[in-house]
Amino acid sequence: MMRTRPLKVALLGCGVVGSEVARIMTTHADDLAARIGAPVELAGVAVRRPDRVRDGIDPSLVTTDATALVKRGDIDVVVEVIGGIEPARSLITTAFEHGASVVSANKALLAQDGAALHAAAEEHDKDLYYEAAVAGAIPLIRPLRESLAGDKVNRVLGIVNGTTNFILDKMDSTGAGYQEALDEATALGYAEADPTADVEGFDAAAKAAILAGIAFHSRVRLDDVYREGMTEVTAADFASAKNMGCTIKLLAICERAQDGGSVTARVHPAMIPLSHPLASVRGAYNAVFVESDASGQLMFYGPGAGGAPTASAVLGDLVAVCRNRLSGATGPGESAYAALPVSGMGDVVTRYHISLDVADKPGVLAQVATVFAEHGVSIDTVRQQGRPEGDGEASLVVVTHRASDASLSGTVEALRKLDTVRGVASIMRVEGE
Amino acid sequence: MMRTRPLKVALLGCGVVGSEVARIMTTHADDLAARIGAPVELAGVAVRRPDRVRDGIDPSLVTTDATALVKRGDIDVVVEVIGGIEPARSLITTAFEHGASVVSANKALLAQDGAALHAAAEEHDKDLYYEAAVAGAIPLIRPLRESLAGDKVNRVLGIVNGTTNFILDKMDSTGAGYQEALDEATALGYAEADPTADVEGFDAAAKAAILAGIAFHSRVRLDDVYREGMTEVTAADFASAKNMGCTIKLLAICERAQDGGSVTARVHPAMIPLSHPLASVRGAYNAVFVESDASGQLMFYGPGAGGAPTASAVLGDLVAVCRNRLSGATGPGESAYAALPVSGMGDVVTRYHISLDVADKPGVLAQVATVFAEHGVSIDTVRQQGRPEGDGEASLVVVTHRASDASLSGTVEALRKLDTVRGVASIMRVEGE
Repeated sequence: MMRTRPLKVALLGCGVVGSEVARIMTTHADDLAARIGAPVELAGVAVRRPDRVRDGIDPSLVTTDATALVKRGDIDVVVEVIGGIEPARSLITTAFEHGASVVSANKALLAQDGAALHAAAEEHDKDLYYEAAVAGAIPLIRPLRESLAGDKVNRVLGIVNGTTNFILDKMDSTGAGYQEALDEATALGYAEADPTADVEGFDAAAKAAILAGIAFHSRVRLDDVYREGMTEVTAADFASAKNMGCTIKLLAICERAQDGGSVTARVHPAMIPLSHPLASVRGAYNAVFVESDASGQLMFYGPGAGGAPTASAVLGDLVAVCRNRLSGATGPGESAYAALPVSGMGDVVTRYHISLDVADKPGVLAQVATVFAEHGVSIDTVRQQGRPEGDGEASLVVVTHRASDASLSGTVEALRKLDTVRGVASIMRVEGE
Repeated sequence: MMRTRPLKVALLGCGVVGSEVARIMTTHADDLAARIGAPVELAGVAVRRPDRVRDGIDPSLVTTDATALVKRGDIDVVVEVIGGIEPARSLITTAFEHGASVVSANKALLAQDGAALHAAAEEHDKDLYYEAAVAGAIPLIRPLRESLAGDKVNRVLGIVNGTTNFILDKMDSTGAGYQEALDEATALGYAEADPTADVEGFDAAAKAAILAGIAFHSRVRLDDVYREGMTEVTAADFASAKNMGCTIKLLAICERAQDGGSVTARVHPAMIPLSHPLASVRGAYNAVFVESDASGQLMFYGPGAGGAPTASAVLGDLVAVCRNRLSGATGPGESAYAALPVSGMGDVVTRYHISLDVADKPGVLAQVATVFAEHGVSIDTVRQQGRPEGDGEASLVVVTHRASDASLSGTVEALRKLDTVRGVASIMRVEGE
């Protein structure tokens, strides 16, 4: 069974993930060879700083000329773990043109240019695999693309960013505020010095775009994803969530519209019932909940980042791509045949938890309830309480039934115009019920 | 891209799962065709009772002659959802001989004869897929075979039987005894009239054999799996578990030995900490926890049985096998290159929770502790309590550090011989720490 000519792998990038990929390719060479049916050989490693010491990597393989490496013509698989848009995009398309298949961990690039990259792969009859781009080691792309290929996915609900989950979990368990929890995450290495991509939801939005595209067999780009960060979540929000039997998570939510004619993708903090499996996802772990017609509710859970877990996902793809190459076949490419349009946030239907600061006098609740009714938003529960300060203000917490985002926005705009409403303290969506 | 000759599928068995497969093949024909790249056609349905009304299935397709159906020669894929050893085994090998690939949901057959069936598939260069054989709709076989192909799995810990999980969850949440919980499971349709295969662990053992074989790239047969049912679990055991911060689950556990030279597979009830993700798997749901070198801890969660979920898994395989067929390739076959031997239960190392009924007098604890020490079993905690009955007996609860099953068995045997030990009330393993 075993053929002797090794498959040649070019590694682009040798940071946390790349060095782990190189390490495992060396230490587990026999296992990989047995599982592929041929040995794999690291044929070159493109880096920006060649002078950095890299344990266990033959210095003669290291180059700064990534383009020359992917153009060599004898490379079977290019593993791209550079990240970012350029030069990764050009290198991947050049790799296809020169006969290589590609394994990538690049969520930003896939979310932005997935369709073009898939087209390039198909044009050259090559594979493009990217399990590592979403939720690190958690097998998710392959189950969605392949295991659920005979099912109809209606909803994907996920915690796909470990940094924000660490922060929110900390706020939930200790009562800490956002800044305090962020500081701890930074000190422990869970948050980067500039945490913007994580806390503002950009990272999660890229993953949502990729997941939505695969789940609904349609093209969903990063720009199509509604995005709201979690920097405004307060200890008071967690207290409100506890009152509701909920916790707060930053969720990536991809949904098929009820009429089936469109899809939505969004990232925002949301309350989720403690009984929901996602509620107990702790620390920096990721988990993705998938709802389908036939299979019902599935959940995939694991480490969403880190060198070794991400390398595991890359190597799983590498084995698959090498096997395809040996058999002269390619795996599943882009599946966008359904071509469902992506609707805007206004069409999203969910429940809401709204905290209002109102004047503490009779008739306020009636006024507020009228505004909700006029906008077609049905109220589930209201809780009204005077403030201990006796400052003439009261809090009103309204939880709605399901309503469109557009209706809710109209409601909130009208509420702000009421004299008796001093302010809208918070609005949070309630998901997973 | 789309070719016009349809791929022909023969369905063997048309019970709960088979009829759902047929239904989805009809209602989702366009989706399946788009995902495969060619239409799929139900070419025949073999059943035992042809007179039963089958909604939505063309009566002219129904036959009682399954052998003739798989021998037709124009069948691309045989879907076997009959279950049991024969005639399923003969039909599958006949299918390979006559040019078809096979999708099966048959855990018993795969656990007993997986190696021979894989060999037959390979001999004829055909696919044998069986995602539905383990944990219903949960994508598990494919992630283990493919996503983790670049990783080293050390442990698989799973709740793979929904009936027993329903019963144990009920006992845990209501304090009910085993019989009462079983009666409720039967009334609700979660347990069969004869629940033996579930409650005695036979079903879980078959799944453990399949999972261990794939996880460790070795052959593990049903006979290699240690098996203990859950009919002896009592309300008192749950009370003990709660004292430990644990609950009780029937677990399938597949482990690589510490020295890496062998593997074990076992099914038995065990205490598991409430903080472990498996502890919160409720009702009839299944979940499998996988520990690997690089990816760390992953969990896969979902419905473990039922017509529609199992059909989803079958159809995911059907799409993959059809795609392979169109590209003239086959997917991953058996991977048993590691050929690790399967060790017996004596070599399994874990912790134990032991409840003893002892004489309520000084010196008993010293005697008991000496027996543990003599057998090399180190004690973690001991709790001693007199009985309110004042019958001269006391309870002694011993929780051990990790020790081999052989050492523990020796200890228990010696304890039973002590005059002061009136009885061993229960022994339960403690897992997942």
